[in-house]
Amino acid sequence: MKALAVDLGGSHATCALVGDQSVLVSKVVATDGSHGLEPVLPVLRETFVGLLSQSRMSASDGEGLAFSFCGIVDSSTQRILATNGKYDDGPTLDLVGWCRESFGITLKMANDARMALLGEWYAGAARGSNDVVMITLGTGMGGAAMVQGQLLWGKHFQAGCLGGHFPVQFNGRTCSCGAIGCAEAEASTVSLPGLCKSNPGYESSELARDEPVTFEKLFQYGQKGDHVAIEIRERCLQVWGAATVALIHAYDPELLVLGGGVMKSASVILPYLQNYIHRHAWTPWGKVKVCAAELGNDAALLGAIPLLRGLADR
Amino acid sequence: MKALAVDLGGSHATCALVGDQSVLVSKVVATDGSHGLEPVLPVLRETFVGLLSQSRMSASDGEGLAFSFCGIVDSSTQRILATNGKYDDGPTLDLVGWCRESFGITLKMANDARMALLGEWYAGAARGSNDVVMITLGTGMGGAAMVQGQLLWGKHFQAGCLGGHFPVQFNGRTCSCGAIGCAEAEASTVSLPGLCKSNPGYESSELARDEPVTFEKLFQYGQKGDHVAIEIRERCLQVWGAATVALIHAYDPELLVLGGGVMKSASVILPYLQNYIHRHAWTPWGKVKVCAAELGNDAALLGAIPLLRGLADR
Repeated sequence: MKALAVDLGGSHATCALVGDQSVLVSKVVATDGSHGLEPVLPVLRETFVGLLSQSRMSASDGEGLAFSFCGIVDSSTQRILATNGKYDDGPTLDLVGWCRESFGITLKMANDARMALLGEWYAGAARGSNDVVMITLGTGMGGAAMVQGQLLWGKHFQAGCLGGHFPVQFNGRTCSCGAIGCAEAEASTVSLPGLCKSNPGYESSELARDEPVTFEKLFQYGQKGDHVAIEIRERCLQVWGAATVALIHAYDPELLVLGGGVMKSASVILPYLQNYIHRHAWTPWGKVKVCAAELGNDAALLGAIPLLRGLADR
Repeated sequence: MKALAVDLGGSHATCALVGDQSVLVSKVVATDGSHGLEPVLPVLRETFVGLLSQSRMSASDGEGLAFSFCGIVDSSTQRILATNGKYDDGPTLDLVGWCRESFGITLKMANDARMALLGEWYAGAARGSNDVVMITLGTGMGGAAMVQGQLLWGKHFQAGCLGGHFPVQFNGRTCSCGAIGCAEAEASTVSLPGLCKSNPGYESSELARDEPVTFEKLFQYGQKGDHVAIEIRERCLQVWGAATVALIHAYDPELLVLGGGVMKSASVILPYLQNYIHRHAWTPWGKVKVCAAELGNDAALLGAIPLLRGLADR
């Protein structure tokens, strides 16, 4: 065992013991982000105690605990900087102290999108590439960027991880982040119902009779020839095309990794985006490779070793 | 004298001898980018010989020659990588060798937008800030980004300097770069005539009788109450608002510096963008400062010292 790893999302946490490039054992526990992070900590401790005992290991056998968090994190002080309606007490907590007291080991933490990129870089789809943008198409749109072998952090730890919040329609929908026409507001699971309702043909479409609409259904109905589904699908693909071109223009990667739940429809999305990018991204040096993430829910956990070792720090 | 500096644009070159934070003496010479860079080199040499003689200095009194170029440059090998219809022989030329033979000194080069940011950082509006985005509103839209004290280069030297080429309207105009709806295609001097013509009221407006339309005229007519001018002005301001929010979300700066010819109308543009950014950029840590560039045409020249000393390299 190389490390303890936790990936904390809004409604559940995955605790794991990880080897160099594999998850040895893991357990998912339900959490309730709306009640804060403090009540979750004893649950995480207990879960790790169970995993360690079951594996006949001691926490000190590992290099530390890597904490993947669904918010903005200061990865130099290991403090939570900003949350978004989940675990809002996070900025007040001393997680380094909690980890030392609980397990006698060091803790490092980072935003979940950066952790997923670290995982894919160390053990997944981005192995061997030092210039990578990852984008996660899911409920929202997350992202992270590695430039010349360094994770991009930024002064306030926001650089590279707001890829879903580049405006791609300057006079578009207001986004939950406050900006106008962000890719997340124009094409993500959270914005899909609104997108459907604003399509004039939607109410009388097949799709409308199968609510709640998901991207999986949207793509299925599109394949069956439903015109409304096709229109909405094409619009979303164009939005993702514009967003990925913006990311390529921003960070100059050689590889774009696409992850997230919406990638269940990778057979439609990947070829479309590959073609879109090859036609529209300005890359006189050659072509950006586009591929699907490989590690699924393990990505952020497998970011543990590179995070703890500082492999992508300057 | 600290360095020789040349700023090569499409139609002219400025040669200068620079002190630590000032231009000591400079001369502008006409050039013709369409005939290549090779025939320009003897002109640059002769101009520097004249400046040195007039100042009773020798090239070896300086730390080297800093070359600001209107294209993409590999600043590790000092080679031109990509041009855009100007000086297209650039990638074939050994400028380091030319400089050594001509003056017996070292040459370093960078893209002009990065040089301008270096200049403003070392001697102008961005002094004291290590997290800066600069955007140049002019014929096109240029840009550069400094993240945590390092100029962002990127694997192919394109990171940070395509700020005018983030799509801000996913179904908008095709840009000269090949992407769709770039800020440059939606609001820059080069796109202004097309923008005007696509406004239904334009042909019968005051503005149409005063062609060619410039942003200066657009803002003047807008101030006089010309409705068409106001509509086009508002649209351009929104586009710049979206583009600057995208840049802030991309690079996490504390300071945004705006330069370029369009900033003659800074009294309208600056307060609008400051307000737009404060309302729409997602910066839970505080507010991004927005200011005008201070050094005008000297900015890229005054980037010479930080470039030659590698002050913003890792």
